[in-house]
Amino acid sequence: MEHKKEGKNSSDKVQIKPYKKDAEYSYTLGAFPTYELILSKPEKVRQVVAHSSYTDMDGLMDLCKKHNIPVEINDKLISKLSDKENCYVAGIFDKYSCRLSQDKSHIVLVNPSNMGNLGTILRTIAGFGIYDLAIILPGADIFNPKCVRASMGALFKVNFQFFESFDEYRRQYKDHDVFTFMLNGERTLDIADCSKSELFSLVFGNEATGLDDSFLNAGTSVKIPQTEDVDSLNLTIAVGIGVYVFNAKNLR
Amino acid sequence: MEHKKEGKNSSDKVQIKPYKKDAEYSYTLGAFPTYELILSKPEKVRQVVAHSSYTDMDGLMDLCKKHNIPVEINDKLISKLSDKENCYVAGIFDKYSCRLSQDKSHIVLVNPSNMGNLGTILRTIAGFGIYDLAIILPGADIFNPKCVRASMGALFKVNFQFFESFDEYRRQYKDHDVFTFMLNGERTLDIADCSKSELFSLVFGNEATGLDDSFLNAGTSVKIPQTEDVDSLNLTIAVGIGVYVFNAKNLR
Repeated sequence: MEHKKEGKNSSDKVQIKPYKKDAEYSYTLGAFPTYELILSKPEKVRQVVAHSSYTDMDGLMDLCKKHNIPVEINDKLISKLSDKENCYVAGIFDKYSCRLSQDKSHIVLVNPSNMGNLGTILRTIAGFGIYDLAIILPGADIFNPKCVRASMGALFKVNFQFFESFDEYRRQYKDHDVFTFMLNGERTLDIADCSKSELFSLVFGNEATGLDDSFLNAGTSVKIPQTEDVDSLNLTIAVGIGVYVFNAKNLR
Repeated sequence: MEHKKEGKNSSDKVQIKPYKKDAEYSYTLGAFPTYELILSKPEKVRQVVAHSSYTDMDGLMDLCKKHNIPVEINDKLISKLSDKENCYVAGIFDKYSCRLSQDKSHIVLVNPSNMGNLGTILRTIAGFGIYDLAIILPGADIFNPKCVRASMGALFKVNFQFFESFDEYRRQYKDHDVFTFMLNGERTLDIADCSKSELFSLVFGNEATGLDDSFLNAGTSVKIPQTEDVDSLNLTIAVGIGVYVFNAKNLR
């Protein structure tokens, strides 16, 4: 097993800079999301960077060799890319675009603003077998390393597509039964009496503002029952419960 | 309406310092959690600090006057306490301790490590009508302003109690039916077939490590069904779904 060792200045040589939204590439920070990247989207990986004290170097080398991905051992570059101390592996990958499946259920996020929430939602929906996420712009940057990390690499298993408006989304995906999650929704999300649908879009609003009243007529509006002791549920919790209940009632 | 205006050096005078874990007081940052503090625990509030450009100053003054809480308008102190730009109101309150209700259902967190998660869990359980949270130490600092903020003030509506071990918790609360949430749990959390219990404790492990196998025998072990595409669900999502399902099946 040959480990390619690099000199101290290699981080300058390969010109890898801290993440920027308009860059053509981004990073996975941490071994787990980097493995998910390599396994799900090997053709998008430019290179993998490892810290010299990473404990499963042979396994990482084998996997990267299989996919013809260069590996660089470079402690300085790792610390430059990550602000966390316990990051031993990073992956540098080309950004890419996807299209949603016409025949699978979707999650639609209208103007999600928080990158950590967006990543957690990717992780959650993949955990419940939903692999298509529509984002109505403006929205948080899905490729930001904070989002990638919060997703634990689930980003690479989910199709995502951006739309300028909800109408634009509906013009492209007309067959889905739309359920809009709103504090003033008409139907209560009820385990015993959840709406049946084989092809659904569950729509959630922005963290601070939710969905505006125009969404009351976009499909069936749904509210998750909650006490008056909170202003609302956290967005990620609402998505998690919505997906869990719809899944349990509608998927096999 | 008299607004008490303070000179530039008042922050030094009242000796309010950035938060420390061993301090006897903490802060609410933001108008919403500060109002929740005043309404739920007025006797714990030392003082309220407002930014001169806060838009509902009269309402805040009225509420504080009603509870004999001093208000200080002090832009410098607000910016000192908060690292966010959009913070206009802060509350300074004495830390306090609680005991759990013997006759209400509980959530038990074993070694929760993330303050944001802990706050989100407080907000979530209050939203679903569970007001008793046990924390098995070590655990994240529930009074840290980050946790208070993530809870959106729900901290002040929930009883919490710390225990050195799960055994210590059980010695004090013997009547609860224990359900431990584990990836290798014996029962699947099923909407149609959720365990019935009028007095339950739902137990969740640490973000990174979950519950160890000793918890397989602590009660009924439960797993939330999930795909193999994720390592596990985020802790806050697991708690949200667990509480939602148990609530829907067991509470009126």
